[in-house]
Parts: sequence; C-alpha cells; structure tokens
Amino acid sequence: MSYRAPIDDILLALNHGAGFSRAVAAGHMGDYDPDMTAAILEEAGRFAADILAPLNTVGDTVGAKFADGEVTTPPGWIEAYRNWVDAGWGGVAAPEAFGGQNLPSVLNCACMEMWNSANMGFALCPMLTMGAIDALEAHGTETLRNIYLSKLISGEWTGTMHLTEPQAGSDVGALRTRAVPAGDGTYKLSGSKIFITYGEHDMTGNIIHFVLARLPDAPPGTKGISLFLVPKFLVNGDGSPGARNDIRAASIEHKMGIHASPTCVMVMGDNGGATGYLVGEENAGMACMFTMMNRARLGVGLEGVGLAERAYQQALAYAHERKQGRGVGSTTKGSDPIIVHPDVKRMLMTMRAMTMAARVICYATGAAIDISHRAQDAKVRADAVARAALLTPIAKAFSTDIGIEVASLGIQVHGGMGFIEETGAAQYYRDARIAAIYEGTNGIQAIDLVTRKLAPDGASVRALMGEMEPVIGRVEASNNPAFGMTGARLREAFAALERASRWLLETLPKAPNDALAGATPYLRLWGVTLGGCMLADQALAALANADLAHIAPRAVASARFFAENITVTAGGLERTITEGAGGVSGADVALAV
Amino acid sequence: MSYRAPIDDILLALNHGAGFSRAVAAGHMGDYDPDMTAAILEEAGRFAADILAPLNTVGDTVGAKFADGEVTTPPGWIEAYRNWVDAGWGGVAAPEAFGGQNLPSVLNCACMEMWNSANMGFALCPMLTMGAIDALEAHGTETLRNIYLSKLISGEWTGTMHLTEPQAGSDVGALRTRAVPAGDGTYKLSGSKIFITYGEHDMTGNIIHFVLARLPDAPPGTKGISLFLVPKFLVNGDGSPGARNDIRAASIEHKMGIHASPTCVMVMGDNGGATGYLVGEENAGMACMFTMMNRARLGVGLEGVGLAERAYQQALAYAHERKQGRGVGSTTKGSDPIIVHPDVKRMLMTMRAMTMAARVICYATGAAIDISHRAQDAKVRADAVARAALLTPIAKAFSTDIGIEVASLGIQVHGGMGFIEETGAAQYYRDARIAAIYEGTNGIQAIDLVTRKLAPDGASVRALMGEMEPVIGRVEASNNPAFGMTGARLREAFAALERASRWLLETLPKAPNDALAGATPYLRLWGVTLGGCMLADQALAALANADLAHIAPRAVASARFFAENITVTAGGLERTITEGAGGVSGADVALAV
Repeated sequence: MSYRAPIDDILLALNHGAGFSRAVAAGHMGDYDPDMTAAILEEAGRFAADILAPLNTVGDTVGAKFADGEVTTPPGWIEAYRNWVDAGWGGVAAPEAFGGQNLPSVLNCACMEMWNSANMGFALCPMLTMGAIDALEAHGTETLRNIYLSKLISGEWTGTMHLTEPQAGSDVGALRTRAVPAGDGTYKLSGSKIFITYGEHDMTGNIIHFVLARLPDAPPGTKGISLFLVPKFLVNGDGSPGARNDIRAASIEHKMGIHASPTCVMVMGDNGGATGYLVGEENAGMACMFTMMNRARLGVGLEGVGLAERAYQQALAYAHERKQGRGVGSTTKGSDPIIVHPDVKRMLMTMRAMTMAARVICYATGAAIDISHRAQDAKVRADAVARAALLTPIAKAFSTDIGIEVASLGIQVHGGMGFIEETGAAQYYRDARIAAIYEGTNGIQAIDLVTRKLAPDGASVRALMGEMEPVIGRVEASNNPAFGMTGARLREAFAALERASRWLLETLPKAPNDALAGATPYLRLWGVTLGGCMLADQALAALANADLAHIAPRAVASARFFAENITVTAGGLERTITEGAGGVSGADVALAV
Repeated sequence: MSYRAPIDDILLALNHGAGFSRAVAAGHMGDYDPDMTAAILEEAGRFAADILAPLNTVGDTVGAKFADGEVTTPPGWIEAYRNWVDAGWGGVAAPEAFGGQNLPSVLNCACMEMWNSANMGFALCPMLTMGAIDALEAHGTETLRNIYLSKLISGEWTGTMHLTEPQAGSDVGALRTRAVPAGDGTYKLSGSKIFITYGEHDMTGNIIHFVLARLPDAPPGTKGISLFLVPKFLVNGDGSPGARNDIRAASIEHKMGIHASPTCVMVMGDNGGATGYLVGEENAGMACMFTMMNRARLGVGLEGVGLAERAYQQALAYAHERKQGRGVGSTTKGSDPIIVHPDVKRMLMTMRAMTMAARVICYATGAAIDISHRAQDAKVRADAVARAALLTPIAKAFSTDIGIEVASLGIQVHGGMGFIEETGAAQYYRDARIAAIYEGTNGIQAIDLVTRKLAPDGASVRALMGEMEPVIGRVEASNNPAFGMTGARLREAFAALERASRWLLETLPKAPNDALAGATPYLRLWGVTLGGCMLADQALAALANADLAHIAPRAVASARFFAENITVTAGGLERTITEGAGGVSGADVALAV
C-alpha cells in the first residue's frame, strides 16, 4: 500500500489549527517567509512517499540483523539513508552555522509526521539524532560542538540516547553506569544500557552516543547523573573517525514491531572504559536529558500521528475498493463497496478525526517551541515556554494512544484480511504500540501534566483555555448547520475541563494519590477538548478563506465528527477524575496476589 | 508466565452474576447437581494450566507449518491433543447418547474461557469441532449422526466450518463453491475456501469439514446455500477412515497472531469433486450455519475473556514484582513495586473489571442457551431463546473489544519489556486482535443487535432491562459506602440505554442508516450497562453469602471500579447514538478519494 502525503490536511493544521500563520504574522517566527511552507512540505512528502515508504514492508519482514557486534540494516536502508543525507532532511530546523537550514522546528514536525507515516523504523534514526543535536547545541562545549555538530546535522554521523538500564527505566535516577575522570579532561565509562535505538548500525561511519552515567562521588538519584558524549570511533584532529572506542552492541531485541530499528543492548568498559566527554556540568545530566527528551516526546507523538495517518489511508482505500453486501436502499447491481455502510463510515471517520486532532496538537506544540526561541518579546517567549511545557505531555500521550486505536480500527476495516501480515495493516498496529511507552510512558506523561504543568497554580492551563473559549463562541455564533452539535459538545467539554482542573489543583496538595488516580483521564480530557477546539478553529479558518474553499467541507465534517463522537466523552472523563479516586485507592483489595 | 485458573472469580460470575444458581434452583437446568460445578471447573483449570498453558509460547514462536498439502502442528501439540481426548473435554456439553456428558453448556463456557486463557491457538480446534457437533446434532440425518457424532465428541476426529471465500466474507450469500448431486444421494463439491481454521493438521486421523456450497439450480444469495459434510477421509462401513476425499489444503496464512492455529486455503474438486453429504434441507444451509455460528460467536467472546484474563494475570504479577520509583509518602528503603502508583492501579483495575464484565455477560449468554433447551416450561424456553439471541452479539463484540483493550493495557503495564516478544504480553495483543473480526465482525454484531434483536418491537430488550433495574435498586438500597457511586452510575446508564433503545426503535424504520450509524456505540452502551449491573449483582450476592465472604470485598471493588470508570461512559455513548447520525452520514465529503 502506497503512502500519499496529505499536504492539504497538514497545511490546514499547521497554518490555522496550530496557529503558525498567526505566529508568523505576529513576527514570532523571525524573518521566516511563509510562502516557502507548501514547497518544503511537498518536497518532504515526495521523499517520504518515493524513498521511505517503499521500504516499510521490507523493514518489517527482514528487520535489522545482529551478528558479532555488528548490525545489518534491511536491504535498501543504506541507500535510503544516503539519499536522506544528500537531501539535507536532517538539518531542516538545525542552526545554519553548522549547516542546517534554521527553519522553524514546526516545519520539521510536519516532516517528521511524514517520515513516520512512510517508515517509522527508518524515521527513528534521525529522530534520535535530532535529540542529540539539541543536547549538544544547548549544553556542549564549543570544542565538542565544532567537532560533532555539523556531522550530526548533515547526517554523516548519527546520534543516540543512552538512558535505560535494566533497573532504571521510568526511574532514570536508579542508573548505575559509571564515569571516572581520566585525568586529561575525558572520562572512562563502564556499564551497560538497554533499549538503545540504533545503538549500532551500518549506515554511517560513526555513531555518537549520548550516555547518562554517574561520577564516583555523585549524589544518589537524579541529582547525581551526568551526560557524556561517547563516540563509537574517537575522532582524529582532522575530523575523521579514528580508534574504535570501548562501547559496543551486545545484542538486539526481538520486538513486536519496528523490526527495522535495531534496539540494542550496549556495553561499555570491556577494555578499560569507553572514552567520554562531559556535556553540560557534572551532575547536571538530567537537565541535558530533558533537552533531548522534550523534543523526543513531541517526536514520539508524531509517530502516533504518522502511523494513524498511514493506517487511515490504507483502510480508506480498502473500504472504497472492497465490495461486500449492499447499502440500505442500494440500487447497484451486485455488491457495494463497504464504505457505503454507516458502521464502516464511523470507523473511518473515527480514524480520520482522531488523526487530525492529534496532528494539530503536535503541531501547536512545535509552534510553541519555536515561539519560545524566536519571538522578540521576552514575555511572549516565556509564555511560549509554558505553553510548550503544557502541550508536550498531551502531544506525546494523546497522539500515541490514538495511534494505537486508529491502527486497531484500520485492521478492523479490513476484516479478516487485516490479520494477514501481507496486507500491511497489522504492521501499523504492531509498530504503533511502542510509542505509548518510550520517552516516558503515557502514564508518566499524565502525571507530568497534573503535577508539573497544571500545578502549582494552573496559570498555563488558564492561559490556554482562555484561547480555546473564543473558538467555541465562534462555532456557536456561526450558526452553520454543518457543524451539527459541535458548539454544544465543545462548550460542555470546556466546562468539564475547567471543573476537573480546579478539582485536581485543590486535591493534589492534600491528597496527591487521589489526584494521581485521575491523571490519565485528565490527559485524555485535554486531548478530546483541545483537539476538538483546534479542529473547529481550523474548520472556521477554512470556511473564512477563499483559498481553502476546496477543503472547508471536509474540515467542518471532521471537526463535527470529532466533537460529536470523541469530545462527547468529556463528561464521563470528568466524573472519572473527580469522583473515581476512591475506587482506585480502594482497589488494593482486588489487586492483592 | 504461568496461568492460574481464576476459579473463585469464575464461580462467582457463573453462579451469581450469570444466574446459573438461580436457574438450577428453578429447575431450568434439568437434574443437574450444582455440587459438581466447582470440581469440574477446578479439574478443567488444572488441565488448562498444566497441559495447555505451557505450550502457548512454542505455539506462537514455532507456529503451524505447511508443506506439500500437510500441516505440522507445533511441538507438543499432538500429545496435548491426545491428553485432551483422553480427558474427554470435548464432550462436556455433548449428548450422552454419543459419549458426551450432557452437562449444561455454560459449564463448557467456563472451560472454554480457561482453554483460551491457556492457549488460544490450541483452543480454536475444539471450538470449531463443537460448532460442527451442534450443526450435525441439530440438522444431520440419523445415518450421519451415527457415523460421525461420537468421533467428533470424543475428539478422535475434529470438525471445521467452511464459509468464507475471497469474494464472500461478511456477505456469505456471495459464495460460489458448487455441489452437484452424484445420483447416489451424495454430492460432488468443487471450489475453494479461505480462512479455514484447522482445515488441515496432524493431530487426528480424520477431519470432518462442514462446507457451505451452492446447488446447480440454487436461487441466488443466502437462500441458495446448502450445508455439506465433507470428510477428509471417506468412512468405511466399520467406521474406519477409508479413501482420501478430494479436498485438500493449498496453503496456510501468515498471520499476526494465533500462529499455532493453521488458517487454511482449502481446495475441493481437483479430481472430480469432493464427496459430500447434505446436512439439513437443500438450500437451507444458512439456518444450519447459524446453528454453528451462534455457538461459535459465544465461543469467540470467550476468547476475548480468556485472553483478557491471561493478560491481566501477567500484568498483575509484573506490577507486584517490578520495582521502579517510589509511591507518594513511601517509607520503603529503595524502590517500590510499581503497583503502588495510582496510575498503574487504574490500568490493572480497568483490565480486571472489564474482564469480569465480559466474563459474566458471556456466561449469562451460555446460561440462556441452556435454559432454552433444558427448561420444562415452554414459555421459559421461548424467553430464553430470545434472551440468548439478544445477548449473543453483545457477548461476542463487547468481550472481544475489551480483549484487545485489556491486552494493550497489559503491554503498557510492562513498559518497554512489554514490547519485547519474549515477555509474552505482546502475544496476547496480537492474538486478541482477530477475535473482533471472525464469526461476524463486531460491526456486524452491532447491526444484528439493532436490526434483529432490539427491533422489531424491543420486547427482549425490555425483558432484560426489567431484570437489571431491581439490581440497581438493591445497590442503591444497600447504602454500602464500598460501592461508591455504583448505584448512581448504573441508574444513569440505565436511563441512557432506555432512551437510546427507544430512539433506535423509532428511527430504524424511517431512517435506517441513521440507526445503523449508532449500532456500534449502542452495543458498547449495552456492554457497559449490563456488565455493570451484573458485576453489582454478583457483588451483592457475595456480600449476602457467608461462603463468599472471602471474595466479597474484591467483588465490590471491581463492580465499583467498573461502574465509576466504564459504565460512566454511557451518557456520551447515548448522545453519540441519538445525536451523532448526521455527522456520520455527512462524512462522505471527508471520506471521498
């Protein structure tokens, strides 16, 4: 099944739902020329469709292979990666001084969505590299930046994030990898890491590992973690790869999905220690990690969007093509395509509307990150920092949850064929499952939302809700029958979100476990309410803009479907949060073993 | 990960939630002695845990193999199947005259749940055989019954259901396999079938295929379908297998899950036609098919329950064992098991409560089927026929939907380990996905519920709701604080179900597509409301019964959690049904390609 980049949907979400056009017009994106947007995204869409998408199946069926410490990527990967480097896609949002294009990172979000739609197993490699670039750019010394940054940005070398150890997953502070000063300003690292994406591969001449480790005198927990740059090959004075460093892949995991992406067990120190270079201050590794992690969380959210879009496209095509049974009152001779059946329409619209909602939330997160860096006004930048912080857990968790739900519906639309691997729908369902887990499980995202983004004072929640309410008013005022119950559903959900937020703010200090019991439904409540508002906002923009007349009807239909079928769950979610904590704390009796 | 049969939960659901004890006491189960129940189920639980569960992983990793028309089952399968036959598990609910035990079939439901928990890939083979037994017993001639029934019941031979063809999936009436009278009372069949579970295997000396085919002069569509018994080996006068019949497996499918279960493409007529024997009347095959299918639909619902239970057990054990982070206010030295976290408790209770709800709905369906056969009073039997008909689509679709949801949460509880195949959680997620599709997709179940079970007059819906309401009243009257908001949530959901049912009854005749647009949420509304009432009912029974004091607290906690977190979605579902049809019919503009 081929992939077609949904450029119209992407542009609508980016420019209107996510507010990119407004931000550009307000000067918050520097001197970016918005006339470039469509051309860049169309080019990215072609690369995704022509180069990456055709390799998705072979990536799944052949997968990455491990032998004798080496990883072989699937057939075609090396060539595709060379194409990627030549086209410069790794540098879209990277600094010009090191060869990047310095475009707003939200454009890169749209590109990331497309890479993931086309081939998530491939897209993971650049995603990790981009996180490494962020960390190095923000925290690395000038020397390290000069040696490594341009090579990472061009993609000549790739980057990794070494966080997890068997006993240190969600609890990063429990990690044990040791780093000992070598006396020459470098460090010797020893220990092992698990779940290291593209920790080893055959696509580039060097791999630059970013490793969290603990100094000998480090305090326990997260306060005693430092970040180190550990190249696979030490780098000579002329920038060429030199001696092999003491870090190697010991094995790769046998996973349910993303088979093309090698998930490595990495071992350091078998021969005296891997040479590492400190990034940031000693014992300040957590801050560096969050630099990598926050961008990566948004990137993972875009994996959810990308897979959902791909699953939707395939299911939609199948529903138009597969003939079975007849519609009510059909006058066709023979069978009708299954898309005539209301239940099939419901499945497809659920897929479409949830995908669109997750997309616009992710893009809005990317736009907030850009404004936080690019706006001239310090207050605007500070507000955008808070906005990006609030949106990141929602973008990550809501998008990856719906990624799974949409991929599951995609199989269902195919009937029995969906369960046959050759059909392709099953791969999206398997691949999508990981995204709800890594870079902080969705449960951790929800806890982050309640304890750090809503709390302490609810200010950033109030600010965002202050922008949502006028959208609802405009839907109501439009009196456009095509919106159906959209206005009413959004209004109810908004009120539910307001009450739930207040309850959580009041409850968190006095009964933290009661507040935490509602964290996951609270994040979902955000997704269904914010997604609904943003889809309505972009539908109103399409209606108001003559250039968008061709997509206005479907923008309105999608916003309506989302509000009437997804946003409508808000009332139940609210009551789960505000009246359900007792049932969770009282569950111990049922969960004893 | 080992499996432990949840006998306490099963007995509570069976005897109390599903009303088996009441039916026995009322004499509707014939002379069944209820003192046998626990012993039978414990024995079945041991077989599931000791014989079938240890083979689940090898079934997945090795799978069934196809070569030269032969299927090789995974290592250990043949021995396990011989054990199955020796223990007589195939005959629990089969007629005594042919070697069965003639026990109420609801006991077999509880056994089926356990077989599926232990090893769904294995359990599929007896499930299909049981469907074949039903069809043969109900519709076969005395001659056919005498030749085949005892061998199918003992399990010496297995049975299959041959329905699907490439162009005839959900639309069975489109099938093309031909049966031509041979002039000697037999028929010659030719054509091919797909998706035939255990169509070929190496566990028994014969395989008895039940094949839907079309006679030369048959009317088009479902009115022209006849059912034929087509043995792999023709049977000699002494009952031994004789000449090889002209039916063979051409290949098996490469599926996402249930790898141990060979899904065959079957070909008949390469050598003049497969000899078949008519079962039932000519052109009356659909009625025979529904005899097989209805039982099979309940059997598939039990696959959902079985996988959900297994996924829950594994996740629960992991959550008690895996240490990571610390609970709020924890005074433990070091890390706490992750089950201390409210969000993990929420996931586990969601898994537990949904599994319990699906279980009790399936058992209630099985009990209704038994009453429809065994009650002395014709009115009681007729009411039970209607009850079983109403419950079957709910049991099938709700249970298999939650099977997927629970298996997905099971992976999530494991974090990154859940995505690694060796952990085992991924297999449940892959295996569970098919159950929402076969024996009638869940969308078809929902349409069946609205168009044939609710309509034409809502009588069977009213009858069941008439039994649900007093349960709600008893929860409210209990004033037991451990029930939390259970009474209120059930009362609201009941009202929502009543309004939605009325709206659908009124809408179906005048705007069928509007009613069909709400079919899936209507079935879910049934699941969350009925499941909630039944869990509350069995919790009240546990509270009232001194023998059940040890499980009463967890029965109440589970009923409460379900009501507060799952039943609470009823209001949103109602509005999706009654106010969402316009958004579905208006979706065409968004779904055009």
